[in-house]
Amino acid sequence: MTKPLFKRIALIGIGLIGSSISHAVRRAGLAADIVGHARTAATRDTALRIGLITEAFATAADAVRGADLVVLCAPVGACGALAAEIGPHLAAGAIVTDVGSVKGAIVRDCAPHLPAGVHFIPGHPIAGTEHSGPESGFAELFDGRWCILTPPSGSDPTAVDKLTALWLGMGAKVEIMDAEHHDLVLAITSHVPHLIAYTIVNTAAHLGRVTDSEVIKYSAGGFRDFTRIAASDPTMWRDVFLNNKEATLEMLGRFSEDLAELQRAIRFGDGDTLFKLFSDARQIRRGIIQAGQDTSAPDFGRQKAKS
Amino acid sequence: MTKPLFKRIALIGIGLIGSSISHAVRRAGLAADIVGHARTAATRDTALRIGLITEAFATAADAVRGADLVVLCAPVGACGALAAEIGPHLAAGAIVTDVGSVKGAIVRDCAPHLPAGVHFIPGHPIAGTEHSGPESGFAELFDGRWCILTPPSGSDPTAVDKLTALWLGMGAKVEIMDAEHHDLVLAITSHVPHLIAYTIVNTAAHLGRVTDSEVIKYSAGGFRDFTRIAASDPTMWRDVFLNNKEATLEMLGRFSEDLAELQRAIRFGDGDTLFKLFSDARQIRRGIIQAGQDTSAPDFGRQKAKS
Repeated sequence: MTKPLFKRIALIGIGLIGSSISHAVRRAGLAADIVGHARTAATRDTALRIGLITEAFATAADAVRGADLVVLCAPVGACGALAAEIGPHLAAGAIVTDVGSVKGAIVRDCAPHLPAGVHFIPGHPIAGTEHSGPESGFAELFDGRWCILTPPSGSDPTAVDKLTALWLGMGAKVEIMDAEHHDLVLAITSHVPHLIAYTIVNTAAHLGRVTDSEVIKYSAGGFRDFTRIAASDPTMWRDVFLNNKEATLEMLGRFSEDLAELQRAIRFGDGDTLFKLFSDARQIRRGIIQAGQDTSAPDFGRQKAKS
Repeated sequence: MTKPLFKRIALIGIGLIGSSISHAVRRAGLAADIVGHARTAATRDTALRIGLITEAFATAADAVRGADLVVLCAPVGACGALAAEIGPHLAAGAIVTDVGSVKGAIVRDCAPHLPAGVHFIPGHPIAGTEHSGPESGFAELFDGRWCILTPPSGSDPTAVDKLTALWLGMGAKVEIMDAEHHDLVLAITSHVPHLIAYTIVNTAAHLGRVTDSEVIKYSAGGFRDFTRIAASDPTMWRDVFLNNKEATLEMLGRFSEDLAELQRAIRFGDGDTLFKLFSDARQIRRGIIQAGQDTSAPDFGRQKAKS
């Protein structure tokens, strides 16, 4: 047995990502011990019962004591207050990271509360499902997915390497970039797609001339794929949009311009423009499959729910 | 052995839907014989080689002779010309149907060319994948999915019942509605979602500040689900939008209004509005899973492509 990478990992928040980290860390033997904090007693009980953590703490401050790695697995909007709470209780030399979908705001909200001698290296695994809670996690969630780390300039290279090794050990691939660029990239690859999905699901739900029942029955024509994204955790996503406002609004503006162009092509019966734009989109899809970020198995034809 | 429902089915067009019909008809023994027409010799050869049809015809006119069921499996924009071609060659009492995603335009374009004594009953199976061509079909494509039939008023009930029995035999569920309502329902459940997906994929592909390579690498955050829809056949979708213009533009207008509302909420930091809209969207998702139109298996966490 080689020595585990970390002695004691403290998970602050034990939902989909926190529980998946526990599974993936244990699968690869990356930590001697995993403890955690969750706000509700029900989540703490579940996390202990299914073996995600060995000790559950009612406060984040208690959970981080003696940990050499602290992972904030909470909605982006909650991380500043958590950093303020745990700051005085962190072990010297500890690494603090997070898993939030926005990085600029995390640095702004957390960094001021973390003492010198603690290594703060924000992170974001690009992985997830539409499910929430401590029982939704699984060890394979990060396999083959990218985790972006955004170490502030002047970060200790050894600490960055150690956190990189953790994510690699959990099956992920690791990329380093600055927080601002991360937020721009994620605005287009994740935040705006989610906003659009939430929007069309709500549009469909409020049509007088088409019933909810019809929308549900005939959703296999494309709509259901939007509902899957739109089933993601509302608190997490509210915080994403409140904290990545500028990049999201910029990308939304571009999307609206492009949609107007297609709308005009439909209005004026311009089939050539439609055909060209639709053909171009196929190329991007091929790139995603070649990069291993999706499978080419036909998905619209997926089987009925077993229920 | 009971007698098959049809003696001779002629498939006009042998792509994803045509080939899936062949598989599903043969699975249930619904026809004594299946013949077909495809525009290209390559498709005809493939269809014969993999046993989708017993005879391949270079013209639609030749393919329909002696058929008691003709299924137009071509893009919506091609159906009018096909109806004109086959009209004089149809057997008396034959049923002619189609599988197009738009129904009003099909009636407008096809009905004038079909002789008295032929039963024209437009249809639309709400099923598909992002793949195209004669080798992309499979027998299970229609299992548990809805097929909408839009018989014009005055249609022969026996012919409608027979076509209904065919779709039930292929595993689908059948609903009858008028063509105009079909086009409105599909505009929101299928046509606008596809247009939005095509749009955002193209938006992402033309960003100076985020590279295509970054979009592809980090697509697991939601974007890849849009690319899957946007990989659908460009010709088919061009024809859908050209032929369901009014309903698509109406639904797009509503979508844009709703998107503007969310955009404003982001701009002004209105977290309550965001949270409420995101929570509402979850309800629709639950309805779709309960109705058996999707599974609740976590999909964002799907495994890497094997390739």
